[in-house]
Amino acid sequence: MPFHIEYERTVAARRPEGHQPAAPRYSLRWTRPVPTLVSVYFGVQGKSLEWPAEQAFYDLLRQKLDSGSGPESLETMRCHDDAGYTNGILVAYWTDPTRYAKWLIESGFKQWLSAQERLEGEYGYWCEAIVVPYDRHETIYSGPEYRIGFSRTADSVIVPITTNGFFGAARDRLPVSAIDPLDSPYGKSPIPRTEPASHGAHLMVLVPHNVTILRSGQYWEGAGQAQLDDYMESLQPKLHRGMSYLANNKPDTGCLSLRIMTNLSEDGTARAETSVLGAFVSLQKLEEWAATHETHLDIYRHAIAMNRLYKEKREVVTWHELFVLMQGNCFEYVNCHPATGMLPYGEVWQSRKE
Amino acid sequence: MPFHIEYERTVAARRPEGHQPAAPRYSLRWTRPVPTLVSVYFGVQGKSLEWPAEQAFYDLLRQKLDSGSGPESLETMRCHDDAGYTNGILVAYWTDPTRYAKWLIESGFKQWLSAQERLEGEYGYWCEAIVVPYDRHETIYSGPEYRIGFSRTADSVIVPITTNGFFGAARDRLPVSAIDPLDSPYGKSPIPRTEPASHGAHLMVLVPHNVTILRSGQYWEGAGQAQLDDYMESLQPKLHRGMSYLANNKPDTGCLSLRIMTNLSEDGTARAETSVLGAFVSLQKLEEWAATHETHLDIYRHAIAMNRLYKEKREVVTWHELFVLMQGNCFEYVNCHPATGMLPYGEVWQSRKE
Repeated sequence: MPFHIEYERTVAARRPEGHQPAAPRYSLRWTRPVPTLVSVYFGVQGKSLEWPAEQAFYDLLRQKLDSGSGPESLETMRCHDDAGYTNGILVAYWTDPTRYAKWLIESGFKQWLSAQERLEGEYGYWCEAIVVPYDRHETIYSGPEYRIGFSRTADSVIVPITTNGFFGAARDRLPVSAIDPLDSPYGKSPIPRTEPASHGAHLMVLVPHNVTILRSGQYWEGAGQAQLDDYMESLQPKLHRGMSYLANNKPDTGCLSLRIMTNLSEDGTARAETSVLGAFVSLQKLEEWAATHETHLDIYRHAIAMNRLYKEKREVVTWHELFVLMQGNCFEYVNCHPATGMLPYGEVWQSRKE
Repeated sequence: MPFHIEYERTVAARRPEGHQPAAPRYSLRWTRPVPTLVSVYFGVQGKSLEWPAEQAFYDLLRQKLDSGSGPESLETMRCHDDAGYTNGILVAYWTDPTRYAKWLIESGFKQWLSAQERLEGEYGYWCEAIVVPYDRHETIYSGPEYRIGFSRTADSVIVPITTNGFFGAARDRLPVSAIDPLDSPYGKSPIPRTEPASHGAHLMVLVPHNVTILRSGQYWEGAGQAQLDDYMESLQPKLHRGMSYLANNKPDTGCLSLRIMTNLSEDGTARAETSVLGAFVSLQKLEEWAATHETHLDIYRHAIAMNRLYKEKREVVTWHELFVLMQGNCFEYVNCHPATGMLPYGEVWQSRKE
């Protein structure tokens, strides 16, 4: 049996009595114990970010990450943010927090990030390390074959589930939700927004407790014409509409940060794969949008309909991995614009000048 | 059945085959799920700390802590540190991280700690918040009656155990040790020591991953003359000898910080109760000292002998609570001397001046 954590419930499940999902879905497990999950998003940011600079960043990181304590998998992606900057992003996955801590000590990455030169040029750099106990994560995949995100780490298996197809299913899949309502410590209030003076500074933000981060992905490489057309003409526009709504209604939706990212090939060209990295005040705010707003219902219904239509012949893969953060996740921003990632939300510290 | 977490072992237990403990021992459980434990040590520090200043600190904190999101229990203690400073300490216990996060938002404590006045006077202030998943803690009590530390929180129960009386028992009692060796990310190397310019500064230290913090307590109030004499003449001197050895051999023993604290009455006088708060590079370093050094073996053997002699009539209570920290524990120091607590160990950030 793969490793998993289950608690005797004190918080009721959302699953309706006798529920049978309309479409098959899958989750990630590991065949060894994985008490902690680490996904680190490394970014380079520029008003105009040319490929040589972006590539140099990836090359440097790949070299630092290529060590015994390095990650088990990595991907490169690109995102144009709301402030008009381009961000080159490398995400790296570890399933052992001690190995990640060792990498931080041994790699020299922190020294590189803290060097005076990082503060001076036209580029910004950021590092968002998501470190969560296993019981604060959940995943879902539309099919059992394609590996991406955490499913590229060693000893992972994709297993069928039935905890899907109802609102609240993501919560039910989070082991800790059985014993913790995962409320925002801000209650119904928003997280106060600040605009720290971040250009020319090396800042660190303590991400507030129970902030919920979702990486939601789409993969259509090799899809046949019919499914490709449907994806391009129907699902992708619906997805973009939903993301625009979130991006333009941050205070109402509880959305804090939203990055629409395109996966890159080695040469920096776009692959037939995207993902959206969204941060929300709480799981509850994310659920409210998903359960009630027509922009999400549109995406949801279309994805389900295509799954029912094509069944195991479905060639477009959708998936997500979700994390409910504990207090203590420290995101770093060097010479970035003040609306980068979680920089406007949470307690801000600055690097030390002796 | 009280809440507890157990994993199927992939790391062997230390318990010897067929082991039966020589003396009864007890651990803490809760009758409700407690996925995270929070103990926060608040300190005021002065070269000479008079009672009115110490009392004013406790009064202010008690007022801030007396709220719906406040802690479930608190204690006040005093410690004279190696640098010759006196520290007044209030420790507060929460068993809900969301409630603690809410308290931080609502209480105004952080604003008070960050005020310019804190940087200017003769006193320093510090705040060490230990936030750990349940599976990274363990406790032991010599008897089932006396409540202290986390055992004063709501819905806690003290239950008999048999995971005691062998070297490695503390590790076996830590649920996560079944699937994680809890090694230091520094391997066999020490954690580098720095001396940040801390006077007049508000600094934050990220405590390294797997640093192990132990609060080990002694309570002899109401003990009869025979057991009191034995405690004063035999166990307490052995304890002091052990603590001196650790304090004077920090690099060798992996001890990072050691506070010998006396519990206080309302009027600031000492109670018949002490505890030692020790931070170590890793659980392994703590185990090495405990298993091999004569100063610990002396304490250990004497405590066991007294338990065997007096059995349920033992009037001196010994206990501890132990936490193996994840990365992401942030300790703050305002206008403190540079060797305070964990300040010399770990990545240091400073408060932000706009």
